[in-house]
Amino acid sequence: MKEAVDMIGSRPTAPTADPMSSLTIGSLLNAALVGSAERKIVYRDQPPISYHDLRERVGRLASLLRDRGVGPGDTVAMLDWDSDRYLASYFAVPMMGAVLQTVNVRLSPDQIRYTLQQSRARILIIHRDFAPLVEAIRHDLPDVRDHVVITEGARDALPGWAGGSYEDLLARSRADFPFDETLDENNVATTFYTTGTTGLPKGVCFTHRQLVLHSLSVAAALGADGQIGYRDVYMPLTPMFHVHAWGFPYVATMLGLTQIYPGRYEPSLIVDLHQRHGVTLSHCVPTVLRMVMDTADSQGIKFDGWKMLIGGSVLSPDLLAAAQAAGLRVLAGYGMSETGPVVSLMRASVPPESGHSAARSGYPIPLVTVSVVDDAMQPVPRDDRSHGELVVRSPWLTPGYVGDATASAQLWHGGWLHTQDVATLHEDGALQIRDRIKDVIKSGGEWICSQTLETLILAEPDVAQVAVVGVPHPQWQERPVAFIVPRAGARPDITRILLTVDAAVERGEISRYARLDHVEIVEDLPLTSVGKIDKKAIREWSQLG
Amino acid sequence: MKEAVDMIGSRPTAPTADPMSSLTIGSLLNAALVGSAERKIVYRDQPPISYHDLRERVGRLASLLRDRGVGPGDTVAMLDWDSDRYLASYFAVPMMGAVLQTVNVRLSPDQIRYTLQQSRARILIIHRDFAPLVEAIRHDLPDVRDHVVITEGARDALPGWAGGSYEDLLARSRADFPFDETLDENNVATTFYTTGTTGLPKGVCFTHRQLVLHSLSVAAALGADGQIGYRDVYMPLTPMFHVHAWGFPYVATMLGLTQIYPGRYEPSLIVDLHQRHGVTLSHCVPTVLRMVMDTADSQGIKFDGWKMLIGGSVLSPDLLAAAQAAGLRVLAGYGMSETGPVVSLMRASVPPESGHSAARSGYPIPLVTVSVVDDAMQPVPRDDRSHGELVVRSPWLTPGYVGDATASAQLWHGGWLHTQDVATLHEDGALQIRDRIKDVIKSGGEWICSQTLETLILAEPDVAQVAVVGVPHPQWQERPVAFIVPRAGARPDITRILLTVDAAVERGEISRYARLDHVEIVEDLPLTSVGKIDKKAIREWSQLG
Repeated sequence: MKEAVDMIGSRPTAPTADPMSSLTIGSLLNAALVGSAERKIVYRDQPPISYHDLRERVGRLASLLRDRGVGPGDTVAMLDWDSDRYLASYFAVPMMGAVLQTVNVRLSPDQIRYTLQQSRARILIIHRDFAPLVEAIRHDLPDVRDHVVITEGARDALPGWAGGSYEDLLARSRADFPFDETLDENNVATTFYTTGTTGLPKGVCFTHRQLVLHSLSVAAALGADGQIGYRDVYMPLTPMFHVHAWGFPYVATMLGLTQIYPGRYEPSLIVDLHQRHGVTLSHCVPTVLRMVMDTADSQGIKFDGWKMLIGGSVLSPDLLAAAQAAGLRVLAGYGMSETGPVVSLMRASVPPESGHSAARSGYPIPLVTVSVVDDAMQPVPRDDRSHGELVVRSPWLTPGYVGDATASAQLWHGGWLHTQDVATLHEDGALQIRDRIKDVIKSGGEWICSQTLETLILAEPDVAQVAVVGVPHPQWQERPVAFIVPRAGARPDITRILLTVDAAVERGEISRYARLDHVEIVEDLPLTSVGKIDKKAIREWSQLG
Repeated sequence: MKEAVDMIGSRPTAPTADPMSSLTIGSLLNAALVGSAERKIVYRDQPPISYHDLRERVGRLASLLRDRGVGPGDTVAMLDWDSDRYLASYFAVPMMGAVLQTVNVRLSPDQIRYTLQQSRARILIIHRDFAPLVEAIRHDLPDVRDHVVITEGARDALPGWAGGSYEDLLARSRADFPFDETLDENNVATTFYTTGTTGLPKGVCFTHRQLVLHSLSVAAALGADGQIGYRDVYMPLTPMFHVHAWGFPYVATMLGLTQIYPGRYEPSLIVDLHQRHGVTLSHCVPTVLRMVMDTADSQGIKFDGWKMLIGGSVLSPDLLAAAQAAGLRVLAGYGMSETGPVVSLMRASVPPESGHSAARSGYPIPLVTVSVVDDAMQPVPRDDRSHGELVVRSPWLTPGYVGDATASAQLWHGGWLHTQDVATLHEDGALQIRDRIKDVIKSGGEWICSQTLETLILAEPDVAQVAVVGVPHPQWQERPVAFIVPRAGARPDITRILLTVDAAVERGEISRYARLDHVEIVEDLPLTSVGKIDKKAIREWSQLG
């Protein structure tokens, strides 16, 4: 500490940060224990636990893992539904200096095996539902020393190869684990594998420092917008394996909110938990939003101001309107696995004269710098019309992809993280994602954003889902084709859809090259493992057909 | 960046932080430029400037300073009232790698000379009101190369020794200063000298990283409590030289709030600015709160939910009640110059059954850890009654006192920052400051908190101000004596005051040793340079008398 003191009046040098003031995950848990004695953490229909119980379980989990050989730098892999167990692992594993792998259980068994091999996971903590999956791949995981199975009380669910039941082992482990208070904030805390659009899943990772800064900035941005408060009741509806449920369980814990964990997502249970506990704050992708709304609607339930942050893919105007009519307070945001994930959040408090929709990708949160650039990395005008690739800087972006120097170098080309998303910027700094670069249709020298076309088509009454992709064309390079899933029992009027697009061309909103070549009605659209429409698969269809 | 990527699956080591993700003051200014195009910064009756104007002036100020020889590590000293000029210096000076000294203009000329000598300030930026002060000491400041004088348009205010007028030089300087984006976050950004209770003023200092983390945590804590929002209109009522007006101008700028700067504090102007601009958020010491309320009251003005954060000294129950009756939303907080300053903030959202007053010292904000300890550094019970010294850890505490290794070692004895404040902790983590250690009266082996007695006495109708100090006693070591300033025209009933204290003894609230030995009516009480009651001077009186 003395170094800094002597810096005044001479040349400043950079003293080593005081290890006691390190930005480590444990500091978020310490913050949680203030003022939250009466607040609870609930898992499905189980009795609630208190924050002090959570703190105790974090200690027990660390002891359990240490007793089974986990040391600093080792990877612990978690395969569970959304639960307070998962929350305890968010803290216990990084706080003991180990790395938490939140296993993407929507990947194929082959892909999951690959990710566990690459991360060299030593211990797997497995919900019994995933035991068959692990059974199938466990012989190919030479680094795994032990399996701890979450049986949820079903004793017969413990496979022969399991080292024990999570609940039994936890109860037998000591709560007073001696966490190292001088842990380096630049230690990796967590890792997660995203679905690559091509090839193998790619691993991203985040340090303690990154998770702490992300939590503070998200809390500051949401708090200043009246979107989060000490009295909120939080429930994730984005899986906890997916970049820490967008980081919200860390934020909710830091602020000591009441938290509800829904386990495996079952629409009727989600609606029931919301009603029973007065959930006020959640986040999800549009598909889950639709599912929750449909379930509530069928039960005649109206929501009363439930705040729902939407990300993952574009929120269509009709879904936004329907959600608002159902009593939800919907706001969009933007981020991706590589960005930790939150880059921007829309604000409820923007002045009405801005004309911004709640579905807009939003404003960069504190400490995030964005730029929308052309091929030469030059910023495009901030006129809300000029397109370019969105590139990002902030202290919580993944340093790269695990074990893939080439992809990491591409990701960070020129010192900015390349999102591969096409965006526009409003002069007030509001961001709008328009498309994925690979989904942009290149035709006649123009860039056509598939999402702009999709938004137009989704506004048509009989359309449930739509994907517009570029199909190869000998003269124009590519031409746009729309694949449409009708609403149940409805038959979309194709001529009308073509005219809708033509009208947008006439109004100058889109290029004349955006006129649809062809519209095809299909029964459903292929989805990726995280529930997004899989345009790669659709392009393959259209090239085969 | 590659280092971190290779950490998964092997032992984690600490990579050097990406310099582009450094926690520097500039990142707060970048955040300010998002979504705040229509928001303004106002200085007294001057035309407002925009955030883009602020950004431009920050560039100009850096160019001005560079052109006058300021380089990285140099100290630039500011002597100004609260203004947008001060705000620009908060950013420009640290962003160019230099150190901003916010000169404590309430110190004596001799003390100010001492602080400028110790900080080796190279350039002084001086409001014309402070020119006579600088005139008197400038020959003793060999490190000062130049003086820039803020004339506020009065050209005859420029002394012969001034290098130029701030406004003229700024207008002539280039806005496009090339700020170094890779500045180290551990560089010292600011320094400030506190009034020592004994001896010379002591210098504290803060790094970029510390100011950024303090800003984020204060924003997160206030935001979650509904106390700060994008729509707030902010006006400081704690001087900007005093630990950056408690850090609030950084928070307000980061969030892009409308900001009002009142210059020299004049009660009628403050009330007028509040009315004219719809100020919603301020912070001050109780003395200023009283002054603002009296002025508004004399003009028949009622406040409409103006949020006022109170710190610096204890907020008495009667002042709290009066402020609430006047329409102010008052909440207390706690901190000191050494702590950057915010340690804790009371919450408006605590459940009513907690019974906590809005005047309570509050809950530690995120990343702050507090402990209340006995002489052996052992925590006392969290029962809201057991006293001890408050010690603190957090990433934004001063590393020590400039050039004073002995005092720094005392401050950080045992790895905690010693506040020299006596406190109690509630089991829910809420803090209550009870006294300064040096003001505690030691009598008959008991500790008597002077503030507890003062709060009791202040509740009496005819008492305007009170100070209770310990006077030496041959048998009991010390005995408590109260010095009372009556309300205008009133005559406090001394017998009644003695009985009030006795009743509290009977109820078991205070020790029987707390019975007052003597009550003395005085015309006024001596104040320190920051407007607090100067008990050191009172103890000297009472020993003389």
